[in-house]
Amino acid sequence: MVSEKMYELGTKKSTIRTIFEYGRKRALEVGEENIYDFSIGNPNVPAPDFVKQAIIDILNEMDPCAVHGYTVAPGNPEVREVLAKDINRRFGTNFAGKNLFITGGAAGAITITFKALSEAGDEFITFAPYFPEYKCFVESTGASLKVVPAKIDDFQIQFDKFEEMITAKTKAIIVNSPNNPSGVVYSEETIKKLAEVLTAKSKEYNHPIFLISDEPYREIAYGVDVPYLPKYYDNTIVCYSYSKSFSLPGERIGYIVVPDEVADFGKVYGAIAGAARVLTHVNAPSLFQLVIARCAGKESDMSTYEKNGKLLYNGLIEAGFKCVKPQGAFYLFPQSLEPDDYAFCKRAQKYDLLLVPGSDFGCPGHFRASYCIKTETIEKSLPLFKKLAEEYKK
Amino acid sequence: MVSEKMYELGTKKSTIRTIFEYGRKRALEVGEENIYDFSIGNPNVPAPDFVKQAIIDILNEMDPCAVHGYTVAPGNPEVREVLAKDINRRFGTNFAGKNLFITGGAAGAITITFKALSEAGDEFITFAPYFPEYKCFVESTGASLKVVPAKIDDFQIQFDKFEEMITAKTKAIIVNSPNNPSGVVYSEETIKKLAEVLTAKSKEYNHPIFLISDEPYREIAYGVDVPYLPKYYDNTIVCYSYSKSFSLPGERIGYIVVPDEVADFGKVYGAIAGAARVLTHVNAPSLFQLVIARCAGKESDMSTYEKNGKLLYNGLIEAGFKCVKPQGAFYLFPQSLEPDDYAFCKRAQKYDLLLVPGSDFGCPGHFRASYCIKTETIEKSLPLFKKLAEEYKK
Repeated sequence: MVSEKMYELGTKKSTIRTIFEYGRKRALEVGEENIYDFSIGNPNVPAPDFVKQAIIDILNEMDPCAVHGYTVAPGNPEVREVLAKDINRRFGTNFAGKNLFITGGAAGAITITFKALSEAGDEFITFAPYFPEYKCFVESTGASLKVVPAKIDDFQIQFDKFEEMITAKTKAIIVNSPNNPSGVVYSEETIKKLAEVLTAKSKEYNHPIFLISDEPYREIAYGVDVPYLPKYYDNTIVCYSYSKSFSLPGERIGYIVVPDEVADFGKVYGAIAGAARVLTHVNAPSLFQLVIARCAGKESDMSTYEKNGKLLYNGLIEAGFKCVKPQGAFYLFPQSLEPDDYAFCKRAQKYDLLLVPGSDFGCPGHFRASYCIKTETIEKSLPLFKKLAEEYKK
Repeated sequence: MVSEKMYELGTKKSTIRTIFEYGRKRALEVGEENIYDFSIGNPNVPAPDFVKQAIIDILNEMDPCAVHGYTVAPGNPEVREVLAKDINRRFGTNFAGKNLFITGGAAGAITITFKALSEAGDEFITFAPYFPEYKCFVESTGASLKVVPAKIDDFQIQFDKFEEMITAKTKAIIVNSPNNPSGVVYSEETIKKLAEVLTAKSKEYNHPIFLISDEPYREIAYGVDVPYLPKYYDNTIVCYSYSKSFSLPGERIGYIVVPDEVADFGKVYGAIAGAARVLTHVNAPSLFQLVIARCAGKESDMSTYEKNGKLLYNGLIEAGFKCVKPQGAFYLFPQSLEPDDYAFCKRAQKYDLLLVPGSDFGCPGHFRASYCIKTETIEKSLPLFKKLAEEYKK
């Protein structure tokens, strides 16, 4: 009567959702302050004041029909020019407005890109640990997703395994750095090697293999450079979001960059326009298009995330956990204290520590802890992590 | 290298787009004030002041994390309760928040609904003249769209032809009243007959045939009742938008109503959630969710559209055109003065009258004139329509 597939996708609860709902229920029993919910990646730094001021200024200065009217599907041309200039200023690139397509956040950006590129039988490749919605989005285009196993010592790339997985059907590689869930940033060395492999394999198979850089966490990085991928590999498409940098996840605003250097730019950009049409993108929310242009170049204070990350990392190391050091985003991805990460996370729940099993991100034997929560909650949680670790020493 | 289908959908210009771009070019040659662009359906009544005030109040009163944060996918639960109550107040229905799913406008609402309901081989039926994007959206789900020919004397429904088209594969009927492009409102008599046919056919084929009511123009109706379809037929799903009622087309905000009375409510609502997920809806823009709740029950002044509609209608009738009287929306759909509506619209361009051929809406021999433009532009256009008509009298 309805699409069974859509019904299943709409009603089968994700592990994160199940944990989150358990937390809400448990908070009613023991009090909000006694729940240590590390499950959800919702920014807890408020949107900066300059965003509020930009909205009010736009409403006071501009004609409502211009503020709230349709824009062309790729977004307000003037906004795209401003954003392109800001990207050029930051990364030394040479983009114009025509290289940008403004979207409903990074989720919109990646889905549109997947659908634009995907032909029947295509394969996309990503690296564990990875954002689980990639699978759903890629499969909805008729393509399939292959996952390269994690390099668990530093969460860079296992190049030997990666190269084995590339075939004539490989359409694109998806990378996400700073990474959800590992918090790791791909080093320049990793990116250079990745570009080398993709250049060689594109030549071998006689068609371009695209590199899709999903980078909503670009601005959340702690003293490490986040290489700008189009500078290393021509066939790179960047998917960006203001969800984290300006704390606007609910507003659904981001963009796609298609550099001129991408093989057959016109075909790729045209297909992106078609995919956006079929996915009923229409246009990215118009007021927030204007807001991001007014706020271009401004920086939000992200120091809370760095402080939280260090606090949680040091506490976990002290308690005896093994964990790759946080470099960005707002997640830690430590090893679970028993091989079965589901069992481990279940055991942590006894202490009201809500953690997400690594298996959900294609990387068993680990767990994800989101630290975009109150610093105080993290402080109070550390003795509990210690108790939990002690259980395993007995 | 990319999806050829997406490339085609993204680059093949629609007739409306081509006419609009011609108009922009022509305006540079002869001046904006000498172009009579009746091609685009972009509201020209500005968003009401209460929308601006609501935005400012929300920004001043609420925590930015609550304003701009993710909401659950179906939308802020409190907002849904407020909207449900407002619908109940207006139409005597009995909805709760759980019956609503807030979307990115009506385009988002209908695509999500199509994808939720559609199984391979399904057929959807709509009535000419119709919004041409229906075809693209329905086909993208793997289903097909059948179009019942127009009843050109009053643009109600040719029931005999409609009944012939219903088969065991018919999944849903799409209606759009007030109608784009005809400006006609389906009478209560039409709706009652439609409900009767669908009830009988659902029984005959032993499965529910859904009725999808796409109603972004509900509030733009001139002295006629727009029947609320769930009151006439149980298996009705309503797709609504604030694009026209609050002049917010660029903000992408609307909703789906799934009444409890719909056969297997849980299945339908669950499939809608799944379709929204696959279409990367994530959540409708969060600030505007709060705005529509604050503005629920407030009415925008739409009198400009009524004034424009009468002015254009009377002028065209006087010039000798045949046209069904405007009842709502902001379109007239007169007969072209020669059977070939493309040739007619081409001829009108000589007078810088930009009109859209009816064939684009599945109804040849007609043209669409959008009157959501300056009243003064309409006044100045009337002598030109007269001259155009006189050409055909020679």
